[in-house]
Amino acid sequence: MDSTCKINAAMSIWRRLSLFVLASSLCLCLCRAEDSAMENIVTEKKAEESHRQDSADLLVFILLLTLTILTIWLFKHRRCRFLHETGLAMIYGLLVGVVLRYAIHVPSDMNNVTLSCNVNASPATLLVNVSGKFYEYTLKGEISGSEINDIQDNEMLRKVTFDPEVFFNILLPPIIFHAGYSLKRRHFFRNLGSILAYAFVGTVVSCFIIGLFMYGCVLLMKQIGHLGGDFFFTDCLFFGAIVSATDPVTVLAIFNELQVDADLYALLFGESVLNDAVALVLSSSIVAYQPEGDNTHTFEAMAMLKSFGVFLGVFSGSFALGVATGVVTALISFTFTKLRELPLLETALFFLMSWSTFLLAEACGFTGVVAVLFCGMTQAHYTFNNLSPESQDRTKQLFELLNFLAENFIFSYMGLTLFTFHNHVFNPIFIVGAFLAVFLGRAANIYPLSFLNKITSNFQHMMMFAGLRGAMTFALSIRDTATYARQMMFSTTLLVVFFTVWICGGGTTPMLSLFLVYCRQKYSGFLQQSCLMMDFLCVRLQIGPDGVEMRSTKQESAWLFRIWYNFDHNYLKPILTHSGPPLTATLPACCGPLARCLTSPQAYENEGQLKDSDSDLILNDGDISLAYGDITVSTDATGAHTSGTPVGGVAVNSDEALDRELAFSDHELVIRGTRLVLPMDDSEHPLPLDSHRHKNETMS
Amino acid sequence: MDSTCKINAAMSIWRRLSLFVLASSLCLCLCRAEDSAMENIVTEKKAEESHRQDSADLLVFILLLTLTILTIWLFKHRRCRFLHETGLAMIYGLLVGVVLRYAIHVPSDMNNVTLSCNVNASPATLLVNVSGKFYEYTLKGEISGSEINDIQDNEMLRKVTFDPEVFFNILLPPIIFHAGYSLKRRHFFRNLGSILAYAFVGTVVSCFIIGLFMYGCVLLMKQIGHLGGDFFFTDCLFFGAIVSATDPVTVLAIFNELQVDADLYALLFGESVLNDAVALVLSSSIVAYQPEGDNTHTFEAMAMLKSFGVFLGVFSGSFALGVATGVVTALISFTFTKLRELPLLETALFFLMSWSTFLLAEACGFTGVVAVLFCGMTQAHYTFNNLSPESQDRTKQLFELLNFLAENFIFSYMGLTLFTFHNHVFNPIFIVGAFLAVFLGRAANIYPLSFLNKITSNFQHMMMFAGLRGAMTFALSIRDTATYARQMMFSTTLLVVFFTVWICGGGTTPMLSLFLVYCRQKYSGFLQQSCLMMDFLCVRLQIGPDGVEMRSTKQESAWLFRIWYNFDHNYLKPILTHSGPPLTATLPACCGPLARCLTSPQAYENEGQLKDSDSDLILNDGDISLAYGDITVSTDATGAHTSGTPVGGVAVNSDEALDRELAFSDHELVIRGTRLVLPMDDSEHPLPLDSHRHKNETMS
Repeated sequence: MDSTCKINAAMSIWRRLSLFVLASSLCLCLCRAEDSAMENIVTEKKAEESHRQDSADLLVFILLLTLTILTIWLFKHRRCRFLHETGLAMIYGLLVGVVLRYAIHVPSDMNNVTLSCNVNASPATLLVNVSGKFYEYTLKGEISGSEINDIQDNEMLRKVTFDPEVFFNILLPPIIFHAGYSLKRRHFFRNLGSILAYAFVGTVVSCFIIGLFMYGCVLLMKQIGHLGGDFFFTDCLFFGAIVSATDPVTVLAIFNELQVDADLYALLFGESVLNDAVALVLSSSIVAYQPEGDNTHTFEAMAMLKSFGVFLGVFSGSFALGVATGVVTALISFTFTKLRELPLLETALFFLMSWSTFLLAEACGFTGVVAVLFCGMTQAHYTFNNLSPESQDRTKQLFELLNFLAENFIFSYMGLTLFTFHNHVFNPIFIVGAFLAVFLGRAANIYPLSFLNKITSNFQHMMMFAGLRGAMTFALSIRDTATYARQMMFSTTLLVVFFTVWICGGGTTPMLSLFLVYCRQKYSGFLQQSCLMMDFLCVRLQIGPDGVEMRSTKQESAWLFRIWYNFDHNYLKPILTHSGPPLTATLPACCGPLARCLTSPQAYENEGQLKDSDSDLILNDGDISLAYGDITVSTDATGAHTSGTPVGGVAVNSDEALDRELAFSDHELVIRGTRLVLPMDDSEHPLPLDSHRHKNETMS
Repeated sequence: MDSTCKINAAMSIWRRLSLFVLASSLCLCLCRAEDSAMENIVTEKKAEESHRQDSADLLVFILLLTLTILTIWLFKHRRCRFLHETGLAMIYGLLVGVVLRYAIHVPSDMNNVTLSCNVNASPATLLVNVSGKFYEYTLKGEISGSEINDIQDNEMLRKVTFDPEVFFNILLPPIIFHAGYSLKRRHFFRNLGSILAYAFVGTVVSCFIIGLFMYGCVLLMKQIGHLGGDFFFTDCLFFGAIVSATDPVTVLAIFNELQVDADLYALLFGESVLNDAVALVLSSSIVAYQPEGDNTHTFEAMAMLKSFGVFLGVFSGSFALGVATGVVTALISFTFTKLRELPLLETALFFLMSWSTFLLAEACGFTGVVAVLFCGMTQAHYTFNNLSPESQDRTKQLFELLNFLAENFIFSYMGLTLFTFHNHVFNPIFIVGAFLAVFLGRAANIYPLSFLNKITSNFQHMMMFAGLRGAMTFALSIRDTATYARQMMFSTTLLVVFFTVWICGGGTTPMLSLFLVYCRQKYSGFLQQSCLMMDFLCVRLQIGPDGVEMRSTKQESAWLFRIWYNFDHNYLKPILTHSGPPLTATLPACCGPLARCLTSPQAYENEGQLKDSDSDLILNDGDISLAYGDITVSTDATGAHTSGTPVGGVAVNSDEALDRELAFSDHELVIRGTRLVLPMDDSEHPLPLDSHRHKNETMS
């Protein structure tokens, strides 16, 4: 396999010498020496130079993040809600991108050598024999013909470009894990049916609608000759998949700040998070669509089925792996209870086990990010209950920080990329088409499914509006920018992300206010004294003026939750955590010995009082109104119960606990209602007691 | 510059196909397709394969760490102190190394291609033209002739080998920062003179003694023909520098657990930490020793001076940068006080600023690790006081976790390397010589300097014994293993680290007991009822039976501390933190307007009560005895003062505060004396009140 290679090289090593006297004196000394040691020193020098450059690049990002943080603080301090921190990070990124692109001119020293070989192989490792010395090179990737000149021109710009795999292997996992770990689980499981429908059916529908619409655009562009390269239907579908991943960040941050209803929050958050996972797997299975023979871009049933198989296999495999590692961690923390005395070890173990989920999934060929999501959810549901209070705080804070840093890094990088990426293809027709398609796709996702799920129109509009595109969409689109089609997709995706984050993200607060005002006008006769947010929540629960229909929807859609809850409460929680009831009470009598063997001593102590750290309710003892199924228990400030059912008593019976669980939603409504405030308003308006009493009467 | 290249390649891409049906069906489909898309897919497949392999390798380490954590817990639980967690991590690493080396055999598929070019250049980026397509390759480093065959043989072993720069850029910085951040500052500054003497003079002395001794060994080896390659005096000096870096980890963990005297702790810790920094800069300035002309390995005064200049320049530059970033962070947290309401932003800012220190230093050509150390110390001294209590916890916990993970990772990797590194050169004479030299070097470091610093012989023996070699030594020795000399050094260094960590680390507890027993026998007549540890501490303070000499040494060596303390207390703390006295009180009257401008409103509030979170004392109000210079204030359980000086009153006068600061040492002695316990003993022996009274009388 001998062959002739050509080396076209011009070398200049001391591109930017150093700024410092000492270093430059060293260099001078090096320049004069011309012996055999010269080469080694030159190589070392080059490696050092490259390392310095890398450090400087990373420093730019770190300083950018620092600046973002300071500005975020300023914004929060001044209560500006029209721009979210991620939007801000993008703006800073844009500014730095402009500076790098236009203000800094680096003389193009050609540090690269092009070897032309007529071989049909591109090995992962290359050994180059340079006059007797061997140098090792590693494959970085293919470069398109047009890029070759760019490489020598835009050395500086290419330097600030990260390997796209960094996003999938370093930045996305903590974000997604944090999402899973901080999911409000009670509300998530209660809305599981709706969330799954949105995430699976909705995403697939959205993907195909966007794909079809974009294919129409592409055909149009081909007709009028606006297309500069190949663009197949699979490319369109791929585009559909990547822009179907919605980002929970911006809208939810605002929701959280305004303390919007927990169910709407759970619905949006759960949908966005699962959405990402589905879109990721969907896009990889579209890439895997490979019909046999020459017609690589025609429809073929077998290949289609295979792609579908890939989707199911990868998704369920990642799911199983994530849950399995979560369960293993829960079991470890369940077994080694004394570990609670050493929070450092506990936190380290938790972190390592969660990380190993990602690595294990990647090593097995599944999708690490998806596995990490389900691992996070399992950890939150089981392991979290076994941790010491200090470790609970530590793990939460650790992932909160990692999530914050990774997210802002991605968004500032996004801004930077608009100017530093050098293969942008902006096609007006495609861009306009994409915006329309994204809108249509989201509408096709939300409205029909919302009809099935019996969610009110206000909720629907809000969800429609909250469909931002963010980190996952960006990461998926930058992963492969080799072909013309992919480059066009990438440029368009960037614009879609910018638009949704700035316009939709920035518009959330006004939108919320708009809906609230609308609600108030409609129901102004019914609830006069309660605050505006309250109305919004009532509308959701379909409380008529007579309160008859209340809670009917919830009960209907709760069958999935009911099955899951029973199984989880009776078997999984007792086996995996110390916070469930003893197994001896929940397993049938015939399994007595097994149950006794598996039950931890703590469980018996818990028998009377269920400790589930899962709760996100702040119960105010002086003002509680718990609804047990159809019985309403009201306690007044003195703590006397107006009903016979004891509050906080024995709740081992799973049906009773479930009812209580379901009823928490309404309870929380009441409690929350007293705390909700109008957006942009600092002072809290406690609900007057009169209106509260009125409400209780309505409910019972 | 055209030239002929040869490509010797044999390709087999599907080395280990996948384990999963879906993936293999995909591959089958790929195999059959032979169109132009083939190449792309092959490249993608290879990249995927390589990614999977990387994930699997990292997974091995993560699981190793998990196992280590579980075993550490078991050890702590069972109170086994003969083996520290780092020693344990090494053992696990060794076991995995043995398995990888001997149990797993990977068929040697040659994935590498060797291109031989007769050019005198090895560019950083290489473009290879493979039949019309361009692939980008990046330079990984030079490979010695002997390694070329190894590369193809030991693909598997090379895979688990990390780039040595990972240690310097990812793993060492958090360890060193954490060391700086968790330094007990009061004790550190009080012993600053001794610590600086040990760290600078001691390390340089140790380096040269080891270098000279090893050069003797090398000459001997040359005589009897045991040397297989070049070994110059600079190499010997380099070896001296890298094995002079002592590791605080193991011994200090045990010290901490046993609550040994804070001054001994500060002395050892400060010395070890600064030691690392000095050794690092020293080794790089030895490498920078480059005499002109042909005689590259002879002595030349100019080159020597230059090396010395490099040492001073790099060290002071890194120091200045580290302190500067720390001060900037302190100023930011001082200015944006409202940031305290958002601990997440505060923590993120702290983390980013500390990281940017590292990057800035690297980008400027200084040593990031050294800069990070001083940054950590500055952050702890100033920024820490401005943080909200929650952020103080968060930052501490974050760096504690990072430090823990990085440290255990390095130590398990160390164990692994003994079997997986494939260019070991074990030379018996060199190894024996190295052990002797390390012993001699440490002795020459500790004993003469201790004599100057008036430190008792027990302390000296303990410090001699505590000179473990750890992460820094390893990282320095693995950084460059290209030449024969460096390979021999690396293998020997590994053995030195193993020996010191296992034997010295494991022997700390018995050693401490030994010294204690010795002390007790000597002074048994003087303090009968106090616990053994107490004696040990008394010996250090040179309390004669009549208590006359007490505190004289401390007063003598405190002049450096006194100058520093005055400056820091009067000017730096008020400018950089909210915890100092107001500047208006400390600056001369002529600077009144400036002082008023710079003083924060909080400072006036603090005027009466100095809040310095620096304190590591737990004051028990019922049993306090504070010595103000020569006046002893004793409070009994009722809180009545037996002296007129108010406790906790106005202490703005810096002399008074300084006296109090200095006096804390003795105070702490008393307090600590009551809490110290014998090693391996669970129950605490509170000092009987009688002996305590006796002690107070002795002191006053």
